[in-house]
Amino acid sequence: MIDGEFNYRYAGVQRVLGILLMIFSVSMLLPVAVGALYGDGELAAFVIGFAVTLATGFMAWAPTRQVRRELKIRDGFLVVVLFWMVLSLFGAIPLWLAVRPDMSFTEATFEAVSGLTTTGATVLVGLDTLPHAILFWRVLLHWMGGMGIIVLAVAVLPMLGVGGMQLYRAETPGPIKDSKLTPRIRETAKALWYLYVSLTLISALLFWAAGTSVFDAVGNAFSSIATGGFANHDLSLGYHGSAAIELVAIISMLAGSVSFGMHFMVWRNADPRIYWRDSETRTFVIMILAATTIATVVLMVAGTYVGLGDAVIKSLFQVLSIGTTTGFTTTDYSIWPSFLPMFLLLGGFVGGCAGSTTGGMKVVRSILLAKQGVREISRLVHPNAEIPIKMGQKVIPDRVVQAVWGFFAVYVTVFVLMFLILLSTGLSELTAFSAVAATINNIGPGLGEVSSNMASIPAAGKWTLCLSMLLGRLEVFTLLVILTPAFWRR
Amino acid sequence: MIDGEFNYRYAGVQRVLGILLMIFSVSMLLPVAVGALYGDGELAAFVIGFAVTLATGFMAWAPTRQVRRELKIRDGFLVVVLFWMVLSLFGAIPLWLAVRPDMSFTEATFEAVSGLTTTGATVLVGLDTLPHAILFWRVLLHWMGGMGIIVLAVAVLPMLGVGGMQLYRAETPGPIKDSKLTPRIRETAKALWYLYVSLTLISALLFWAAGTSVFDAVGNAFSSIATGGFANHDLSLGYHGSAAIELVAIISMLAGSVSFGMHFMVWRNADPRIYWRDSETRTFVIMILAATTIATVVLMVAGTYVGLGDAVIKSLFQVLSIGTTTGFTTTDYSIWPSFLPMFLLLGGFVGGCAGSTTGGMKVVRSILLAKQGVREISRLVHPNAEIPIKMGQKVIPDRVVQAVWGFFAVYVTVFVLMFLILLSTGLSELTAFSAVAATINNIGPGLGEVSSNMASIPAAGKWTLCLSMLLGRLEVFTLLVILTPAFWRR
Ligand SMILES: [K+]
Ligand SMILES: [K+]
Repeated sequence: MIDGEFNYRYAGVQRVLGILLMIFSVSMLLPVAVGALYGDGELAAFVIGFAVTLATGFMAWAPTRQVRRELKIRDGFLVVVLFWMVLSLFGAIPLWLAVRPDMSFTEATFEAVSGLTTTGATVLVGLDTLPHAILFWRVLLHWMGGMGIIVLAVAVLPMLGVGGMQLYRAETPGPIKDSKLTPRIRETAKALWYLYVSLTLISALLFWAAGTSVFDAVGNAFSSIATGGFANHDLSLGYHGSAAIELVAIISMLAGSVSFGMHFMVWRNADPRIYWRDSETRTFVIMILAATTIATVVLMVAGTYVGLGDAVIKSLFQVLSIGTTTGFTTTDYSIWPSFLPMFLLLGGFVGGCAGSTTGGMKVVRSILLAKQGVREISRLVHPNAEIPIKMGQKVIPDRVVQAVWGFFAVYVTVFVLMFLILLSTGLSELTAFSAVAATINNIGPGLGEVSSNMASIPAAGKWTLCLSMLLGRLEVFTLLVILTPAFWRR
Repeated sequence: MIDGEFNYRYAGVQRVLGILLMIFSVSMLLPVAVGALYGDGELAAFVIGFAVTLATGFMAWAPTRQVRRELKIRDGFLVVVLFWMVLSLFGAIPLWLAVRPDMSFTEATFEAVSGLTTTGATVLVGLDTLPHAILFWRVLLHWMGGMGIIVLAVAVLPMLGVGGMQLYRAETPGPIKDSKLTPRIRETAKALWYLYVSLTLISALLFWAAGTSVFDAVGNAFSSIATGGFANHDLSLGYHGSAAIELVAIISMLAGSVSFGMHFMVWRNADPRIYWRDSETRTFVIMILAATTIATVVLMVAGTYVGLGDAVIKSLFQVLSIGTTTGFTTTDYSIWPSFLPMFLLLGGFVGGCAGSTTGGMKVVRSILLAKQGVREISRLVHPNAEIPIKMGQKVIPDRVVQAVWGFFAVYVTVFVLMFLILLSTGLSELTAFSAVAATINNIGPGLGEVSSNMASIPAAGKWTLCLSMLLGRLEVFTLLVILTPAFWRR
C-alpha cells in the first residue's frame, strides 16, 4: 500500500499536516472545559470546531498513514507555511461560529492569525464581557503559536537557511545529524517543550501570586511568554493597575524574548552568566535600557508624569512591551509626546533575539547590519584593509552577511508594498504605516486609529494585514520562496 | 616659500576652497546684472555678497598659493563636503541681506542649501512678486550645484569608493591615471562642462520656443537640467498652464536624470541607441512608464480627471518630476487619491541614474538590491548554487555589492534618525516623514504641511533638513566618513 496514488510528491507533507491538525483539534477541547467551568457558554462553537478539525486532519492523514517518505528540506518550507495558514483557518472556526462575539469570517480569521502568529492585534472591543472560552482560546492560540515559533526559529529556519539564520546552527541544542528534518526537529522540540512549559508555569504562578485571578494568571502567562499581547481586558495590563503584576509581565516578556537555545544552555550548565556572555542577549538588554532612558527623559521634560519613578516604570514597561513585540499596554503610549510613539514602534522592527517568540528583524540581524554599515565607512578611510565581521569571537561568513542583507531589503520592500496597499483602502498615512509595522513585526497595537484595536480597518486591509502577520512570522523568505516557480520544479 | 607654516596637512584643501570661493563669488555678479536689467532692485545684497565671498576666498588662497601639495584621496572627502557646506553659507549671504524677501539667517541658509543641493524645497511664498535678482540666484544655485554633482558623481565619488560607485569607474570618460585626484577630475570636468552647458542651452531655447518669457526659459532650464525644482512662480510649472512647456520640462528633466557619462558616450559615438543598451537607463525609463501607468489607472478609477489624455499627461509629468527628484508640480499631487502621493514620494528614494543630477539612492543601486534579494530567495531553493550578480554582461564583485548594502542600511538609518528628530519639533508624522524623504532624496516638495513649501517647519527642523539635504547630496557616506576619528588620523 505504500506505492500508488497516495505516495505522491507531497504525501509526506500531507501526512504531517494531517497529524498537526488532529493534535490541534484536541486543543479546542480546552476552551470547552474552561467554558464549562465558568458556565458562560459558547461551548458548541468549540465542539463543532474540534469535530471539523479532527475530521479534516484524519482525512488528510488516513490515506498517507503508510507513507514513509522522509521530509526533504524543501518540504520544510511547505509544512511551515501551511502550518500557520491552515491552523489559522481552522482556529478561526470557533470564533466565527460563536454568538458572542459576533465575528465575520474575515474578523475571525484575522483574530486567529493574530493569535497564532503571536501578533496580538485584535479586532474585538469589549473584551471584559466576553465568554471565558473565547478569551482562553485567544491566549491559547498565542501559546501554541509561540511554541511553534521557537521550534521554527531554533530548529527549522536555520536548517532551511532563511535570512542568515544558519548563524544559529552551531548554538542550538542537540547534534546535527544530517539534512533530514524529522529526527533533529523531534529531539530539539522535546527540550524546548519542557523549557517552554516550565517558563509558562513559573510565569503563571508569579502572576497569580502578584494578585491576578487564576484565569488572568494563565492568560497573561500564555500571552507574555509567547510575546503575543492578547489580554483579557480592554485596558490590557493597565486593567490590573498593579506594579507587581507589571513587574511579573516584564520578567515574563524578557523570558520570551531571549533565544530559547540560550535558556537551554543556561539551564543545562546552571549558569545564568551565559546570558550576558552572549553578544545578542547583551545588546538586546542594553538597547532596552537605552531606549527606556530616552523615553524617561522625554516624558520628564514634557511633564507627562509627575514623579521620576512613575516615568521610569511606564517607560520601561512600554519600551519592553513594544521592543519585545509583545504589545501589552499600561498606558496609551500612542499619545506620548514628541517622537516617542514612532520611536517605540520603529524599535519593534529590531524585535528580540533570534530563537525567541518575538517578531521583528531580530537583534542579531540588526547588529550585523550595523557592523556592515560601519565597515563600509571604515573601508573609505582604509580602502585596502580586510575587515572581517564578527559576532563575539566568531567571524561571520560573507554568505551569512549577504543573507542578512537580502533579508533586510526584502523586509523593507514587502513593508512598503503593504503600506501602499493599506493606503489604497483609504486609511491615513499614520494608521496605514503603523498597522503594517505592528503586524509585520508581530507587535500588535499601532498608532493613530489602530492604537488599541484594528476593528476599523476595512476588510481588504484586514486580509492584507493577515498576510503581513504571516510574512513577519515566517521571516518573509519562508513564505516568499514558495511563491517562486523554481520552488515547484522537482 | 613652499615650506613653512602654510604648507601644513590641509593647505591643499584650503587652496582649492579658496579658488572655489573666488570663482563662486563671481557668480554673484550675474544676479546683479539681471537685477539691473529688470530694474527691480536688491543689487546691493549681491554686491556685498560678492565682495565678502571674494575677500574670504582670497584670504584662504593667498597664503597657500605657493603650495604644490597634490590632493590625496582622503582630502577629496573634505573638499567635497566643504564645497557644499561653505558655498551654501556664502550663497546664503545675499538672500539674508536682501530686503525683499525678508529672510532670517536660518531661512536664507535653508534656501541656499536647497538650491546648491538641487533639492528645490523652498521656505519662500509669494515667488511671483520677488525681485528678478533673487529668483535668478535661486536657479543659478541649482545650476551650479548640478554641475558640481555631476563632477562629484562621475569623477570624484567612484574614485573615493563611496557606496558602490566604483561600479561606474570603467564607464566614465577619460583614462584612470593614478590615485591623484586633480588631473583626472580636470579632464573629466571639461567634457562634462560642455555637455552640461549645451543641454541647458537647448532646454532654454525649447522653453522659450514653447512660450515662456526669456527669464522663465533660463530659469526653468537651469532648474530642470539640474533636477532642482525651484520655479519662479508659486504654482511651479502649473503657472504656465501649457502642455508644450510641460513637454519641454519632461525632456529636460529626463536629460538631467540620465548619467552624464552616458550622454558623453552617446555624443562621442553619435548613437542614441547607447541609452537603451544601458541597463540602468533602460530600467529607469521602464520604471517611470510603469509608475505612470499605475498613476493613470488610479486617477481614472477615482475620477480625479475626466479625460484619459489629461490623466496620462498629469501622471507622466508628476511621476517624472518626483521620480527624477526634480520636484516641479503642475497640480497638487499631495491630494491625489489612494496611495498615489506616498507612492510618488517613495519613488523618489530610487531617484534617477547614477552620474546624473538627481537625488535618491539611484536606479543602479536599486537594481543591485533587488537582484540580491532575488538571489537570496533562489539560494533557499538551490542552496549550493553559485549565483553571480550581473549588470548587463558584467559580474559585479562582492565588494561592490557589499558597499551598496552598506549604503542602503546607512541611508535607512539616517532617514529614521532625522524622521525622529523632526517629530520632536512637534510636526505630524506625515509632515515629518515626507519632509525628510523630500530632502534626503533632494526632491523638494513633500506631503502634508510641506506639500508646497517648508516655511512652517520650526528653525531646529530647518537645520535638520539642511543636514538631510547635504547627506543625500553627498551620498551619505562622504559626509559621515569625515565624522569618524579614523579619518583624522594621519
Ligand atoms: K505581539
Ligand atoms: K529636486
